[in-house]
Formats: sequence, C-alpha cells, structure tokens
Amino acid sequence: MADILHRVGIRSSLDDAYQALATRDGLAAWWTNDTRGDSEVGGILEFRFAKGGFDMKVLELVPGTRVLWKVVDGPKEWIGTTIRWDLRQESDYTIVNFKHEGWKEPVEFMHHCSTKWAVFLLSLKALVESGRGAPHPRDVKIDNWN
Amino acid sequence: MADILHRVGIRSSLDDAYQALATRDGLAAWWTNDTRGDSEVGGILEFRFAKGGFDMKVLELVPGTRVLWKVVDGPKEWIGTTIRWDLRQESDYTIVNFKHEGWKEPVEFMHHCSTKWAVFLLSLKALVESGRGAPHPRDVKIDNWN
Repeated sequence: MADILHRVGIRSSLDDAYQALATRDGLAAWWTNDTRGDSEVGGILEFRFAKGGFDMKVLELVPGTRVLWKVVDGPKEWIGTTIRWDLRQESDYTIVNFKHEGWKEPVEFMHHCSTKWAVFLLSLKALVESGRGAPHPRDVKIDNWN
Repeated sequence: MADILHRVGIRSSLDDAYQALATRDGLAAWWTNDTRGDSEVGGILEFRFAKGGFDMKVLELVPGTRVLWKVVDGPKEWIGTTIRWDLRQESDYTIVNFKHEGWKEPVEFMHHCSTKWAVFLLSLKALVESGRGAPHPRDVKIDNWN
C-alpha cells in the first residue's frame, strides 16, 4: 500500500477552510466546477473533469477537524482508496494535512495524481484566502495527462 | 518506508530538462539560488535555504535518462533517503518521474515536503519551458513552515 501526503497552511479560520471541504459549493470552487451530489455523511459526491471523474462516499464530517471520503467509482487505481483531510488551527493558519491512502501500487498514475493534488491544495488555499481558486477547467496543467 | 512521488511533463527536449537537473546552474535556477558544490558523480551538492538545507551525494548521472542523489546531511528525516529523477520523451513532452524514497515514517514534515516538491517541480517546468523558474527565495510559500 502507498499513500499520497500533502500539507498546506491557510491564513483563515478553521470554519472557512472546513466549509470549502465539506460543502458542494466549496468543493466546486477549488477542485472542479462540475461537482454534484450529496455532501452529507453517507451521501455520494460526484466530481467530474474533462475525462471522467470520481465518486466519493462521505464517511466522516467533523466540523473544523476532519473530512473523510471513500472512492466508490472512478479510475480503477482509485476505487477503494480513502481521502482524508485533517484540520487544526496553528497561530494564524489553518493547517490542512491531506492523505490519499491505500493505493495498491506506486504506479506512474499515482505520481501524476500526487502532483495534481498539490496543485488543487494550492487552489483550495487560494480560494479560502482570496475568494478565488483555480478549479477544473481553470486548473494548472502539469503534464501530458493534464 | 514511505516515498514521495511526483510527475510533470515539460514541453522541451530531454537534454534541456536534463541540464536543469544535472548542473549546478540549472539547479540554482529552479530549486534554490544558493546551490553550491560539485555536480559530478561522487560529488556533493549543497542546497541552502533561509533555514538550513540539504547536502546530496550525486550517485548517478545518465544523460537524458536519470539523476540520482543520496541525502548525506540535512534534516534528520532526510538523511539516508534518495532522490531519483527519471526522464523520458513522450510526444512533445519530457516526462519527469520523481521519487524521494526511504522516509522512515510518514511524519507531518513529509506531508509538507511532498507539497513543496510539487511546487519546485512546477518551478523546474517553468524554467525549462520559459527560462524563468521560481527558486528559493522566490518560491511559492505553502504553509507556516514555508
């Protein structure tokens, strides 16, 4: 098993950062504009991109503390993995520790997704700090897979 | 053991991307302006930032194909880890697969370093494509650890 890890610090309240992760409108403003579905615990969120997308079951929502999803549909390498967001306040920052856990193999697609997650975490930071993220289709392109 | 993985695609020749990884001037233009030392196999490269830095022993240099370093001094979590750059051409892109291998534990500092590596890989891409990277001290800040 292999995991993708990231950390950003957002100059914001815990609640502002949490809202961007726990609500459909928040998610649409930094990850992909085409975000549908139900953001409550037990619901399925559907994130769509130019080529396909991901369906996530919301497993945990702890205000100001944690968001946890399980991938239930999407690329085969993603299915069954979990995506975890841990938040805490540290001086002027909301610290976000991110973990995309449970990849079966460290395939080349995992390398791509790791870099792309960093791009989207910086989009999340920009959104919460300035009101403007860079969600798909305005996301930063990193390679020939986009 | 845990690894940091990334992938970028650079619209460039293999040789242009390789030079940015294999020479002191190249490295100084996307990672840290304060890059010293010997970039030949067996040499030690010294990368310095506002707070400390990293000393890397150059283990392999295969033109257009691979650069491999071993960390010989720096933060204790980094010592003994290896940093591997694998390059290949794919249509208009030089594909760079990156691996920072051998972390003992997935500590919070590893989360930070993973995101920061993504930032520097995008700086590498910008340098090779446009002639202007964003090395330290002009690097993109990601959190309260910088």
